[in-house]
Amino acid sequence: MIVGIVGGGQLAQMLARAGLPLGVRSLFLDPSPHACARSAGELLLGGYDDLGLLDRMAAHADVVTYEFENVPTQSLQYLAGRVAVHPAAQVLEVARDRWHEKQFFADLQIPTPPFVRVDSLKDLEDGVAAVGLPAVLKTRTTGYDGKGQWVLRRASDTAAAFAALGGTPLILEGFVPFDREVSVIAVRGRSGETRFYPLSENIHQDGVLVQSVSRPDDLAFEQARTYAERLLDRLAYVGVLALELFQKGELLLANEMAPRVHNSGHWTIEGAETSQFENHMRAILGLPLGSTEPLGLAGMVNFVGSLPDTAQVLAVPGAHLHVYGKEPRPGRKLGHATVRARDPGSLVDALGRLRALAETC
Amino acid sequence: MIVGIVGGGQLAQMLARAGLPLGVRSLFLDPSPHACARSAGELLLGGYDDLGLLDRMAAHADVVTYEFENVPTQSLQYLAGRVAVHPAAQVLEVARDRWHEKQFFADLQIPTPPFVRVDSLKDLEDGVAAVGLPAVLKTRTTGYDGKGQWVLRRASDTAAAFAALGGTPLILEGFVPFDREVSVIAVRGRSGETRFYPLSENIHQDGVLVQSVSRPDDLAFEQARTYAERLLDRLAYVGVLALELFQKGELLLANEMAPRVHNSGHWTIEGAETSQFENHMRAILGLPLGSTEPLGLAGMVNFVGSLPDTAQVLAVPGAHLHVYGKEPRPGRKLGHATVRARDPGSLVDALGRLRALAETC
Repeated sequence: MIVGIVGGGQLAQMLARAGLPLGVRSLFLDPSPHACARSAGELLLGGYDDLGLLDRMAAHADVVTYEFENVPTQSLQYLAGRVAVHPAAQVLEVARDRWHEKQFFADLQIPTPPFVRVDSLKDLEDGVAAVGLPAVLKTRTTGYDGKGQWVLRRASDTAAAFAALGGTPLILEGFVPFDREVSVIAVRGRSGETRFYPLSENIHQDGVLVQSVSRPDDLAFEQARTYAERLLDRLAYVGVLALELFQKGELLLANEMAPRVHNSGHWTIEGAETSQFENHMRAILGLPLGSTEPLGLAGMVNFVGSLPDTAQVLAVPGAHLHVYGKEPRPGRKLGHATVRARDPGSLVDALGRLRALAETC
Repeated sequence: MIVGIVGGGQLAQMLARAGLPLGVRSLFLDPSPHACARSAGELLLGGYDDLGLLDRMAAHADVVTYEFENVPTQSLQYLAGRVAVHPAAQVLEVARDRWHEKQFFADLQIPTPPFVRVDSLKDLEDGVAAVGLPAVLKTRTTGYDGKGQWVLRRASDTAAAFAALGGTPLILEGFVPFDREVSVIAVRGRSGETRFYPLSENIHQDGVLVQSVSRPDDLAFEQARTYAERLLDRLAYVGVLALELFQKGELLLANEMAPRVHNSGHWTIEGAETSQFENHMRAILGLPLGSTEPLGLAGMVNFVGSLPDTAQVLAVPGAHLHVYGKEPRPGRKLGHATVRARDPGSLVDALGRLRALAETC
C-alpha cells in the first residue's frame, strides 16, 4: 500500500515511519529538496500546484492525505478527482479559515471565545466594542505558531493592528484569561469507528507549543471528547483530528481544530498503545483502529531553534528523543523528546530537566 | 552520526529505524539489491569482502556493527583497522563457532549440555558413547534457523549423519529434554554499564523461532542474568547480546549466544521502555543506555514464509505489526507481530489469534 502525503515536514516523516512496519510506503510532495520526510519515503520535489506531480501521486498512491492545512484548494480537488483523499477536501474549507471554523463550532453548539469577522477598520472598532478588551486580531487563514496575530489591549491599538494585518480577511477574538490550554486528539476510521486519546495539557510560549502532557482521567476529558465527536460525525471525518481548547474554571472554549496529526499528540508515540501517526494511517487506509489507551504517564517537550546534546537528553530517565533532521533556524521546531513515567513526580522531574535542556541549548 | 551495518536484513532495518529519531543515519553493506534495510538508510551494494565498499563504510561511519555472525573475519579486521567496530571482531571468533562458544561457556562456569568436538567418524562414534543418545550433530559454523543440524536417535545413525554433515568441523551435543527454552537479552555500553531485559520464553518449530513471550519477574531470570553478565564482562562487550538457554527443572543450560540484536527480543519494541534496537545503537555510539523495564506483558509471533492479512492482524487487541518488505519464500521470516497486554488472559488470547493467523496464511 502507498500513501501520498502533501507536505514533507516532520509530521509527514512521523506518519511515514508509522506506516513502514505496516508495509505502507509513503510518497511526499514538497517544494524543498531538504524536506525532512524524505528519510522515510520517496519525495516528489515540486510545488503543491504542480499538476504533473499531483498526477504522479494520484497514479501511485492508494490514498492521499496532508500534513498541513494550507494545501491549495485546487490541488486537493484535483487529487480528489483521481484518488481517495482523507480527510476530505471540504474539511479544509472549514479548518483553515478561523472565521468559518468558529462559525462551525457555534453551529455544533461547541462554545468558543466571542468572535467577530473583520473586513474593515470599522468592523474592527465595532468588534472591539462587542467582544471587549483585551482581544486578539488574527488573519483568518495562513497563520500558524502564533504568526499573523496581534493582541489589542487598548481601543487606541485598533489602527496599528489593522494597519499591520488589514488587507486580508480577519477575525477578532475575545482574549480568554484561561486557566490552562488542552487538546483532544481524536481519530475516526472509514467505517465510522472513533477513538479518543487522553487529554493533552499544553503550554505555549510566543505562540509556539513548548510542552504537552498526557492527562489520563482528566475531569475535562468527557466534555472535550463530546465536542470532538460532534466534529468527526458532522464532517464524516476520516483520520486524526486535533481540537484545541481553553479551559476557564469548568468551561471549555474551542480555540481551533487541526485536520491532521498534531504536535500536542506527539507523546502518543511512546505514551499510548497506538500512536496518533499509526492511527491516522490505519484510518485513511480503512484498517481497524488501534487502542488509544495511555501507557502510564507521558509528556513531551519541543526543541525549537536548536537541539540539545543527544547524550544529555538520553540521560534523562524515561526520555525518548525525536530529531527531525531539519536545518536549525530560529523559531523552527527541530525535534522533541517524550518522557514516559510511572508516577507524577518522576514525570515532573524529567520534564523539568528536558525543558531546561531545551531552553539552554 | 552515521552507523555502518554489515548486512541489510530485517535486523539492520530495525536498528536503522531505531537510530533515525536519535539523529543517527545508517549505511548498510549487503550483496542483494533487495536488501530490506534500504528503506531505512543507504545501501552499499556489494560483497562483504568488497574492499572498496568497506573503505567507503569506514570513511563515512562513526562506528560499525553487524546484524549476523558470519561476516568474513578479514572484512571485520579490515574495518576494525579503520573505524570503531562493536561488538569487537574477537567476539565473533567465539560466537560463530559452536565448539569455541561452548568451551567459552564452560570456562566461565556457565553450564551447557554435554558436547564433544567432531572431526571424524571415529570422533562421532566416541562422542555418542560419551554424551549418549539422542544427540544433535551440528556444523560448528554457518548454521542458523535449524539448518546444518542432524538429530541422532540410534547408534546406527552415525554414518548417515557424518555423511551428510562431515567435511566441515562439527560438534555433537547431548539432546536436552528441556521444559522450556528461554533467552536473556543483555546490553553493555562503552562505559561498562549493563542492562538486562526480562526473560524471553521461546518456542521453536523446525528450528525456527515462532513465538517469544516476555516473562517479567521470572524465577529463572536472576541465574540467566548472571550468566549473561559473565559473558559481557569477559568480552568487554559493547552492544546487545542474546543468550539462549534450555531450562530443565531449575537447571539452565546455555545453548548459544548471538552477538547482536535477536529475534527473541523483538517484543522489546513495544514491550520495554527502550527497545533492544535503540539500546544497541545507544551502546555502540557511547550514549547512555535506556531502561530495559517491561511495559506490561508482551509477546511476539513470527510470520514465516507468508504474511497474514494486515487488517486481521490489526484487529487483534494490542497487536502491532512489523512487515519487513522481503520477497516471500518458504521458511523465510517476513515479519512479526507484537502484542502488548495488561493481563495474562488477554496476552494468551491475542497470541493464540496471531499464531492461528500465522499458521493459516
